[in-house]
Amino acid sequence: MQYYEDVEVGSTATFGEYEVTAEEIKSFAETYDPQPFHTDEEAAAESMFGGLVASGWHTMAMCMRLTAERPDALAALAGVAADNLRWVNPVRPGDRLSLRTEVIEKRPSSSHEDRGYVTTHVEAVNQDGETVVRFDATALVKRRSYDDQ
Amino acid sequence: MQYYEDVEVGSTATFGEYEVTAEEIKSFAETYDPQPFHTDEEAAAESMFGGLVASGWHTMAMCMRLTAERPDALAALAGVAADNLRWVNPVRPGDRLSLRTEVIEKRPSSSHEDRGYVTTHVEAVNQDGETVVRFDATALVKRRSYDDQ
Repeated sequence: MQYYEDVEVGSTATFGEYEVTAEEIKSFAETYDPQPFHTDEEAAAESMFGGLVASGWHTMAMCMRLTAERPDALAALAGVAADNLRWVNPVRPGDRLSLRTEVIEKRPSSSHEDRGYVTTHVEAVNQDGETVVRFDATALVKRRSYDDQ
Repeated sequence: MQYYEDVEVGSTATFGEYEVTAEEIKSFAETYDPQPFHTDEEAAAESMFGGLVASGWHTMAMCMRLTAERPDALAALAGVAADNLRWVNPVRPGDRLSLRTEVIEKRPSSSHEDRGYVTTHVEAVNQDGETVVRFDATALVKRRSYDDQ
């Protein structure tokens, strides 16, 4: 677990593996993003993607899962922001996604001395080394020294 | 269905209702964001939120559902970007979310004359009129005149 004090701006990491299935793509999309290129193989084949692709918000949920499972995850109190989010390549059944991260900023909270903001640039990369989505995520992170209060 | 030609910069809309349940908050979080303030009422009561709250990415998925169900939804080919995303208030069991939108930009694709980019400022608002999340979403949208090609 990384507390605010542990975080070094400029530090990088690569981690995780998320196997994407057609069943999960369709199940997520039926609940949250029922556009035909996410829910129906035949309709998807006619779309600009030429086949079934994951909802962009499903891809973000996968990235969150990989982030939460990371052994040295941030001691996050809350997620507060995401900036510059770009879905740059489709996510398809059979893809295996991992994350590449770089801490780009940290700053103390001006209102609470027990926490601070950490901004991380994240790229989700598929098995062919292609970036599928990139974004800058900002989390509110606990200071170690206040964790027992 | 709104095609690229139909979209007017500055046009606004308010629509949708999404009822948030504790069961769905925990189910989403167990799959995609297993942090204790999303999965466990007791742990959540000890968190800075004082009770169970939805994953921010779950809230985005709810926003997508409301967007996809809108009767005059964009004729979207793909989602391409999200900017300035801020989770400004927690989403709790029993909340009812609706969306307020304003089209803030449109521009033709420079590479494909059958489509263009539309950027919409979105605010998700709860039953008390509080904004819970705001963001600017950019979609690639079909031109009506090319839809049958």
